[in-house]
Amino acid sequence: MIPIDGIPEVVPGDRIADLLAAAAGDTFLAGDVVVVTQKIVSKAERRLVALDASDPAAAKKLVERESVRVVRRRGDLIISETTHGFVCANAGVDLSNVPEGYAALLPVDADRSARRIRDGLRARLDLELAVIVSDTFGRPWRRGLTDVAIGVAGIAAVVDLRGNEDAGGRTLQVTEVAVADEIASAAELVMGKASGVPVAIVRGVDRGWLREGSVRTEVVRPHAEDLFR
Amino acid sequence: MIPIDGIPEVVPGDRIADLLAAAAGDTFLAGDVVVVTQKIVSKAERRLVALDASDPAAAKKLVERESVRVVRRRGDLIISETTHGFVCANAGVDLSNVPEGYAALLPVDADRSARRIRDGLRARLDLELAVIVSDTFGRPWRRGLTDVAIGVAGIAAVVDLRGNEDAGGRTLQVTEVAVADEIASAAELVMGKASGVPVAIVRGVDRGWLREGSVRTEVVRPHAEDLFR
Repeated sequence: MIPIDGIPEVVPGDRIADLLAAAAGDTFLAGDVVVVTQKIVSKAERRLVALDASDPAAAKKLVERESVRVVRRRGDLIISETTHGFVCANAGVDLSNVPEGYAALLPVDADRSARRIRDGLRARLDLELAVIVSDTFGRPWRRGLTDVAIGVAGIAAVVDLRGNEDAGGRTLQVTEVAVADEIASAAELVMGKASGVPVAIVRGVDRGWLREGSVRTEVVRPHAEDLFR
Repeated sequence: MIPIDGIPEVVPGDRIADLLAAAAGDTFLAGDVVVVTQKIVSKAERRLVALDASDPAAAKKLVERESVRVVRRRGDLIISETTHGFVCANAGVDLSNVPEGYAALLPVDADRSARRIRDGLRARLDLELAVIVSDTFGRPWRRGLTDVAIGVAGIAAVVDLRGNEDAGGRTLQVTEVAVADEIASAAELVMGKASGVPVAIVRGVDRGWLREGSVRTEVVRPHAEDLFR
């Protein structure tokens, strides 16, 4: 895991791939997984919105606008389902690490965001890389936040090992591993929340995982099979 | 992340620390986090139980016995709360990577299991290490499994960064990071489900995280603050 320093403050309209190539072009190797936090993707993609300073409920209204369904509510906390099918606190609307008076919304389509960064890096560096856009979500039943993948390109989001034999020669029962989420969590360990490092490389992942992937189709659980919606 | 090869098949009564010291004593460095999968801990701690071969519902009965409450049920799948307060599929009862006709139950107290391994490694290697006992859980709303910490010793399960300033100088809102879960996920990437590597080292974690920790007190969300029980 390699944190990428030296990325300038991202402003709306920036191209993340250009910033990465300029800051750390020599660092990347073919097969690297580049984990980019949602915050700079949202900034680059003009997903910052100004909050109405005269309205103390402005942030709450924004969260409701970004939600297709409120799953739970307690006090100021809203757990809701986003248009993407994610279930998370405040519909992914974030007030930290953004300019005062602004909020950052999730990318419209983070798989597409990841593809755009991957295509840009390929064009600039002539390297096949994988890209994960990560965000920080809570979990039911367990305290503490972990980073997960909200978009991927060039890497599977879920790797299906069902049917492979376990070490004892028996067929494994259930082994769909959410490798993109695990890689996002691993990357978070070297980025840290307060250190302002928005990108990290995870090197050495299984080459078999490097195929076209999608969080939306592989990870988001369809309502029909979901026991918790 | 360093996978540890060469650990022999674990049998009931084994001491994990002895096996690790014998297989890879020279590999460990002070400050390493040693991630041990629940499966070998359960085996060593005699948490294998024989299933009654004459009863086709034996596994299901075992799951019900290990559950304090069934949270959801669909077909053969039971999501339940364990005595530890974990909410997971089949109460953590596992039929893979164990001898035919047996099931592995979760350790009685995986924080204690982690402490025992840590104490044993300290006695044998004269090194201060951290230990995480990991298991593979599903998640609501998201497909795919990830590894999480079910017990820790010598490392915080959750690191509270609330109140620290973000990169823009504003106070962060919510930043309790479940670092032990993220480390367990990172370790899983080099262990793999089918490869039979039950232990990995994660090196280079923030020294500030290396304190006494507990999954039970830091991670398991008390019912009163839980929106999903």
